[in-house]
Amino acid sequence: MTVTVAVDAMGGDHGPSVTVPACIDFLQGAPVARIVLVGIPARLEGALDKVPASLRERITVRAASEVVDMDEPPADALRRKKDSSMRVAINLVKEGAAHACVSAGNTGALMAIARFVLKTLPGIDRPAIASQLPTKTGDTLVLDLGANVSCTPEHLVQFAAMGSALVSAVKGIERPTVGLLNIGEEDIKGSDVVKQTAEMLKASKLNFYGNVEGDDIYMGTTDVVVCDGFVGNVMLKTSEGLAHMLYEFLKTEFTRNLLTRAAAAIVYPVLASFKRRIDPRRFNGATLVGLKGVVVKSHGGADAFAFKNALVRAAMEVEHGVLDKIAQRIAEMPHPRATDGDASGPLRAHA
Amino acid sequence: MTVTVAVDAMGGDHGPSVTVPACIDFLQGAPVARIVLVGIPARLEGALDKVPASLRERITVRAASEVVDMDEPPADALRRKKDSSMRVAINLVKEGAAHACVSAGNTGALMAIARFVLKTLPGIDRPAIASQLPTKTGDTLVLDLGANVSCTPEHLVQFAAMGSALVSAVKGIERPTVGLLNIGEEDIKGSDVVKQTAEMLKASKLNFYGNVEGDDIYMGTTDVVVCDGFVGNVMLKTSEGLAHMLYEFLKTEFTRNLLTRAAAAIVYPVLASFKRRIDPRRFNGATLVGLKGVVVKSHGGADAFAFKNALVRAAMEVEHGVLDKIAQRIAEMPHPRATDGDASGPLRAHA
Repeated sequence: MTVTVAVDAMGGDHGPSVTVPACIDFLQGAPVARIVLVGIPARLEGALDKVPASLRERITVRAASEVVDMDEPPADALRRKKDSSMRVAINLVKEGAAHACVSAGNTGALMAIARFVLKTLPGIDRPAIASQLPTKTGDTLVLDLGANVSCTPEHLVQFAAMGSALVSAVKGIERPTVGLLNIGEEDIKGSDVVKQTAEMLKASKLNFYGNVEGDDIYMGTTDVVVCDGFVGNVMLKTSEGLAHMLYEFLKTEFTRNLLTRAAAAIVYPVLASFKRRIDPRRFNGATLVGLKGVVVKSHGGADAFAFKNALVRAAMEVEHGVLDKIAQRIAEMPHPRATDGDASGPLRAHA
Repeated sequence: MTVTVAVDAMGGDHGPSVTVPACIDFLQGAPVARIVLVGIPARLEGALDKVPASLRERITVRAASEVVDMDEPPADALRRKKDSSMRVAINLVKEGAAHACVSAGNTGALMAIARFVLKTLPGIDRPAIASQLPTKTGDTLVLDLGANVSCTPEHLVQFAAMGSALVSAVKGIERPTVGLLNIGEEDIKGSDVVKQTAEMLKASKLNFYGNVEGDDIYMGTTDVVVCDGFVGNVMLKTSEGLAHMLYEFLKTEFTRNLLTRAAAAIVYPVLASFKRRIDPRRFNGATLVGLKGVVVKSHGGADAFAFKNALVRAAMEVEHGVLDKIAQRIAEMPHPRATDGDASGPLRAHA
C-alpha cells in the first residue's frame, strides 16, 4: 500500500531544518510512501530547495499559518490555534488525506488536539502514550508514558489490550505477554488500583504474565509493560537521566589524561558500537495509542535521523493495520465499553 | 563517641559468611566502634573463628533462635518469630544496648518489626525508606523507595522534612534543597496529591526547590527528592535494570572477538575506574527513616564490601545525630502532628 504521512514540519526544537531532511531520508527508504509537509510556506522554502527532484513529486506542501509553541498550554493550543501546523496535520488524518501524522511538537497539545479531532476508538476511554524500549534481548512496549496521571483499573486494562494489539500487529506475535508494573515488597504488593487491574487482567483473554518490577522492563521479561502515566513518565525520564549520567562518566574516564585518550582512540570502534546499540534516536517515536488514527510523537529535540525513525514507526503501524488490531482486541475484552466516554474528557470541556 | 551497631548476622542471601567478614572490615576502619552480632550461635562459629584476636573484644554475640525468611510475609515474621535475629537486633536498639541496627534481611519484615518495636518519631505517621543515589556531581537522597504505596500530602511533606534533616545531619548542609518528583507534561502536572504536597512544601520552612522530573535525580538537581513508595520503588528498580543492561552491552562489545578482547585489556584501568564509580555496593544501605532508632537495610544480595558500607552508613547516622535533627526539623513544620497515628497503622493491627 501507499502510505501517506502528514508531517508537522514546524514542530520540535528545530522545525523544518530537521523535519524536511528527515522526510527526504524516509522517502529514500520507502519507495512508494508519500509525505504531506504541513507548515508555514515561507519557512519551508529553504529546506525544500534541498529535496532531490526525484523525491519532490512524493512531497505535497500544505500551508498552515500558526505554530504551537513547545511550552504552550494544550488547552490554549486547542482553542486558539485552529490553523496550527499540528492541527492541520491531524485534520489530514481525520479527512483521510493521510494515514498517519507525525509531530515533534508539544506533547500535551498533540494529545489534546488529536483526541479532540480524531476521537478515541470504541471501548477506549483514554488514549495512552506507548513506546518501545530496548531490552537485553530486543525491546518491550511500555504504556502509559505520561498521558494519564491517575488511572482506574479499567483504563489500565484498556492500555494492556492496546499494547498487546500494537505488539501483535507490529511484531507478529499473536499473544504477547503483558506485565503489570508493580513493586516487590512482600507486605505491600501495590495499590488497590494495581491489585484490581491484576484481577481483571487474569480474567481477560490477554496473555497476562503477572506483576513485573522496574528491573523487568530492561530485562525484557514481557512483551508489554502496563503502568499509569505518572509512573511511566518518571520511569522513562529517570532512565534517560541515568543513561546520560553513565555515558558522561564513561566519557570522563576516557578523557581523563593523554593515556586514557590514547586508549579511547584504540577502542573507538568498540565504544561506537556500544553507543549505536543504546542510541535513543533509534527508538524515537512514541505512539498516541487509542485514537481513530495513527499519531506518532517524536522527541522534541530529535535530529533528522531520530525524526526519520518516528516516520518509519508511523508508516509501519499503518502498514501493519494497528488500528484494526486494537479494535479487534478491544472487542474481545470482557468490558469493551467506555466507562467515562470521550466526550466527557477534560480536554473536550475546554475545546 | 563509641557507636555500637546491632547486626542481624543471619539476614540476607548469604548470612554470616558475608555479615561477619563485613563486621571485621568495619571494625578495622572504626577503631572505637562495637558490634553486637545477633544470630544462631552454631551458625556463627565458623565465621567467628576468622575474627582477628585484636578485634574480637569489640564483638559481642547475642543468641537468637530463629531467622526471618527472605520471602516470609512480614505479618508472619512479626507475629510468630519473636526470637528472630532481626527482632532481637532491633530490640537491642529499643533497650539502648545498641545505637543502630543493620540487616540484609526481608525488607517488609524489617520495616514491620522496627515500626512495631521502636515506634515512629513524634509527628511522623509513617516511616519511609531513604537512600543516597549517585549523581553527576555527588549524590542525592531519595525517599520513599517502597515502604508506602500510597501517600497523602501530609505523608510526603513528612518525608521531605525527614530527608532534609537526614542530609543536614550527614552532609552538614543546613538547608538542603528538596524536589518533589513529578511529570513534565504541560497539561497534566501531577496528581492532586502531588499538587497539594507542592502547596504545603511552599508554605513550609523547608528549602523547597519545586517539582523535579525523573532525569533530575541523576543530574543531582536537588539534595533531596521526595516521592511515594510505589514511584520510588519502580524508579530504583528500573535504574538497577538499566544500569545492568548497559553494563552487559558494554561487556558484550568488549568480548565480541579477539581484537575487542585485546582492546579491553588495554583499557582495563579505565573500565575498572568507570565500574568503581558506578559500583552500587558503594551506595549500599537504605535508611528506615522516621523511627525512634537508626535502622539500616542492606541489599539482600550484598557481599562483605557492600554490607560493610551499610554498617558505615548506620554508624555515621548515629555519630551525626540524625534522629535529633529529624525531631528538630519536624518540630519546625507547620503541621507537626501525626494525622493517622502510629497505633492505627496496618502493621499494628496484625501484631
